[in-house]
Amino acid sequence: MAASMPTLYSCFKIYRDFIQPCCQAKTRVYRKSCQRRHFHLSTRSYAATIISGTELAKEIHKEIQKDVENWVFQGNRRPHLSVILVGDDPASRSYVKNKTKTATALEELLELIDRMNRDWGVSGLLVQLPLPDHINERAVCNAIAPEKDVDGFHIVNIGKLCLDQKSMVPATPAAVWEIIKRTGIDTVGKNVVVAGRSKNVGMPISMLMHTDGRHERPGGDATVTIAHRFTPKEQLKVHTCLADIIIAAAGVPNLITADMIKEGAAVIDVGINRIQDPTTGKTRLVGDVDFEEVKKKAGFITPVPGGVGPMTVAMLMKNTVTAAKNILTL
Amino acid sequence: MAASMPTLYSCFKIYRDFIQPCCQAKTRVYRKSCQRRHFHLSTRSYAATIISGTELAKEIHKEIQKDVENWVFQGNRRPHLSVILVGDDPASRSYVKNKTKTATALEELLELIDRMNRDWGVSGLLVQLPLPDHINERAVCNAIAPEKDVDGFHIVNIGKLCLDQKSMVPATPAAVWEIIKRTGIDTVGKNVVVAGRSKNVGMPISMLMHTDGRHERPGGDATVTIAHRFTPKEQLKVHTCLADIIIAAAGVPNLITADMIKEGAAVIDVGINRIQDPTTGKTRLVGDVDFEEVKKKAGFITPVPGGVGPMTVAMLMKNTVTAAKNILTL
Repeated sequence: MAASMPTLYSCFKIYRDFIQPCCQAKTRVYRKSCQRRHFHLSTRSYAATIISGTELAKEIHKEIQKDVENWVFQGNRRPHLSVILVGDDPASRSYVKNKTKTATALEELLELIDRMNRDWGVSGLLVQLPLPDHINERAVCNAIAPEKDVDGFHIVNIGKLCLDQKSMVPATPAAVWEIIKRTGIDTVGKNVVVAGRSKNVGMPISMLMHTDGRHERPGGDATVTIAHRFTPKEQLKVHTCLADIIIAAAGVPNLITADMIKEGAAVIDVGINRIQDPTTGKTRLVGDVDFEEVKKKAGFITPVPGGVGPMTVAMLMKNTVTAAKNILTL
Repeated sequence: MAASMPTLYSCFKIYRDFIQPCCQAKTRVYRKSCQRRHFHLSTRSYAATIISGTELAKEIHKEIQKDVENWVFQGNRRPHLSVILVGDDPASRSYVKNKTKTATALEELLELIDRMNRDWGVSGLLVQLPLPDHINERAVCNAIAPEKDVDGFHIVNIGKLCLDQKSMVPATPAAVWEIIKRTGIDTVGKNVVVAGRSKNVGMPISMLMHTDGRHERPGGDATVTIAHRFTPKEQLKVHTCLADIIIAAAGVPNLITADMIKEGAAVIDVGINRIQDPTTGKTRLVGDVDFEEVKKKAGFITPVPGGVGPMTVAMLMKNTVTAAKNILTL
């Protein structure tokens, strides 16, 4: 019974023990950060600049570390992230089958969230998604205090994001934004295709990219095309061939191939797919992009692993620091 | 001083005095509602079907009237919409200059909203936008109880809209949706261009059009391109030439011309621009579309006036009835 309870999975002070990104780039990486190039205008025969998310993430982790040390030096508490994990073992899975008891579990989860919302020692709080089917994910996301909501999934944070107000931006979209900006890829008036319309990745990325650069939360001022499962494959290709930036977030291996991209385009791969290697028989991680072929034609490309993944971890840490500062301004 | 106070502009029970759409179509209209055509596939030499928003709105007003009469027959209160108008006369404009007093005006406005939120006799409530510069529009929108917010501008309603949950959909986007659906224009997997990214028109329309048709608030499952002031004109043309549906909501007269559209496309004109007619010297209303030329090439087109305008009024009434029913389910 104890195993089925929502448990406080981990409770750590960030940068006391420095958090390492969980995956390392396996590919050889070249990085030309801050080197602004009008890549889409030139015809090029050399390979794409491979953007190392791992390296960019290290940079951000260092910046956050400095920020946190200043913060603590000024007499503030060290930012603290709490993660709640629900039902991640076989015992809880069988427990889920009992409807009467599962209702109790949701209640207990909401109680735990409520306790942490009121705990000044907790700066940021996230409930690991996805949750077991019987738990209403939306109710859980909305139960977290918006100012502690480091995942940015609370309805008010989604609303603010879509109105270009300052808010907790979900970590993966924030990672994509940061990769593009730190690499110096121009977005204003450019054609961007976002493949995938999920509420925590594709939709927020589309928001960040198309909105006004002068608003409270600045956007990319790009022309954005949102594609998804109902976009016919040949139409997707028509759109991606026009795109200066392609953001693949569909969860479909090999969705973006070399024939679908414009010479010199920037290709950001958000996909994380586990596939079985036909030659070795082993399982490996791939993105949504045919990396080996596309890198010969693109201007910039992120690898999987070692691209958006480690940057997402960094942005979650950044959100935790923001949450810590939020508490003081309430 | 009295003139500068936020005043309860009008307080009427809908369909006791039937509300007429404020503008009538001046053009000759043909209407083929519910006739499903795969218009984008055929080459055609005849002119576009001109969608009469005025006629569609009458249809909806009748449906709502029937719905309301049933509702009242069941013993419920007649739906009631309250509209608050702030500072719409010269007296209040001069008043605005006095900063100390303007703060009081905002406070009074919020108090009035609060009173109406708690008044069970008020089903729906809207504050006419835009507000004078000194009043924080966002604070006012967020002060209205979400379930009475017939404009759909409360942060929670925006959040729900963007998460495809049932919510008050702002009237103009709802009008565009209803025009497309009632005319039988197919959206699934089609290319849609939305020109304009405003938070109360362009952005919500993009949301409605690209999202999942099976979600709680069904979307159009279309591939959507969001264009705006930073989209280069020649790129806008590239996108509109691919589009099966063009929704013009930029507030720029003559933005969409005949050379920019695909034969047979559906063109929905949300623009309302006052221009001086060069021949007569009189002021007249035009949309964002070169109506006379585009109608020769398009499959469907809405006129201005008599298109989206009257439908917007109808959708506001529909939202008021929804709000009246919301009160009972709280």
